[in-house]
Amino acid sequence: MDPIRSFDELSVGQEFAFGTMVMPLEEILDFARRYDPQPFHVDPERAAAGPFGGIIASGLHTLAAAFGHMLRTGIMEQVSMGGAGMELRWPAPVRPGDEIAVTARVEELTPSRSKPDRGVARFRYTGTRTSDGAVVLEVTATHILKR
Amino acid sequence: MDPIRSFDELSVGQEFAFGTMVMPLEEILDFARRYDPQPFHVDPERAAAGPFGGIIASGLHTLAAAFGHMLRTGIMEQVSMGGAGMELRWPAPVRPGDEIAVTARVEELTPSRSKPDRGVARFRYTGTRTSDGAVVLEVTATHILKR
Repeated sequence: MDPIRSFDELSVGQEFAFGTMVMPLEEILDFARRYDPQPFHVDPERAAAGPFGGIIASGLHTLAAAFGHMLRTGIMEQVSMGGAGMELRWPAPVRPGDEIAVTARVEELTPSRSKPDRGVARFRYTGTRTSDGAVVLEVTATHILKR
Repeated sequence: MDPIRSFDELSVGQEFAFGTMVMPLEEILDFARRYDPQPFHVDPERAAAGPFGGIIASGLHTLAAAFGHMLRTGIMEQVSMGGAGMELRWPAPVRPGDEIAVTARVEELTPSRSKPDRGVARFRYTGTRTSDGAVVLEVTATHILKR
C-alpha cells in the first residue's frame, strides 16, 4: 500500500482497504491473560457456560489487532505523529479463527492553527467479519499527521 | 477490593481507586511491536529524534494495561457481561517507568429494558501519573453488568 506522504494529500470521503486479519485462539487467550482476564476471554470451560457461549476476543484485542494490521501496511509511516483519542464500538463479538476485513474512511481534516507542520485527521475504521458481513469493530480515531 | 455483586448496588458518583501500575520499557516495546509498531513506540533511536523526544507507550497499551490492572482487583468478576464501547483520550504521553494511578467514577446507570437480568453502566476511568499529576488516560466505558 502506498504510504500517505502528507496530511494535505488526503480528502474527506477517501477510503482505504487494508485486507484481512485472523484472530487465532492462542493469541486471543494470550492477550486476554495480560490485559482482559475475564472468563469469557481466557477460560474455555467457563466461557462455554457464560454469556457468549464460548471464548470471544477482548474488544481491546480486536482494536489493537486491527491497528497493528493497518500500521503494518505502512500507510502511516511517513506522516504519523501520534493519536489524540478514539470513540469505539464492538457491535458483535469476535470468535477464535474469525477473519476480519479492516477498512477506513477519512471523515474530517482540520489543519492545526497553532502548528503549521501538522493537521488533525479523523479516520473511521471498520472491522467486518468476512464469513457473514457482521461489523465487529467501529472506531473513529483522531490522528495527528505531518504536512 | 470488594467485588461488585450486582448492577443494583452501584450509584452514580460512586468512586473507585485501583492503586497504581508501572509501564516498564520492555513491556512498552513488546506491546508496540505487536500492535502499534510506530518508531516512537518501538525504536529508541528514531524515537529520540521524533515528536516526543523518546519512547512513549502506545495509547492502546496504556488503555489495555489500565483495564488489566482494574480487572485484576476482582471488582468486575461477579457481574461483568462484557463491554459495548468506549470513548477515550490520551491527554499526555506515558514514558517508560511512569507510575500511573487508576481510578473510576460511575457516570450513568441504565437498567436494560429488554433484558431484566442486566443493566448498562457507564464508568469514567482516569489514569494519572503520580510523579506530576498529569492525566494520561481518560476513558468512558460502557459495561454490561448482571443484576
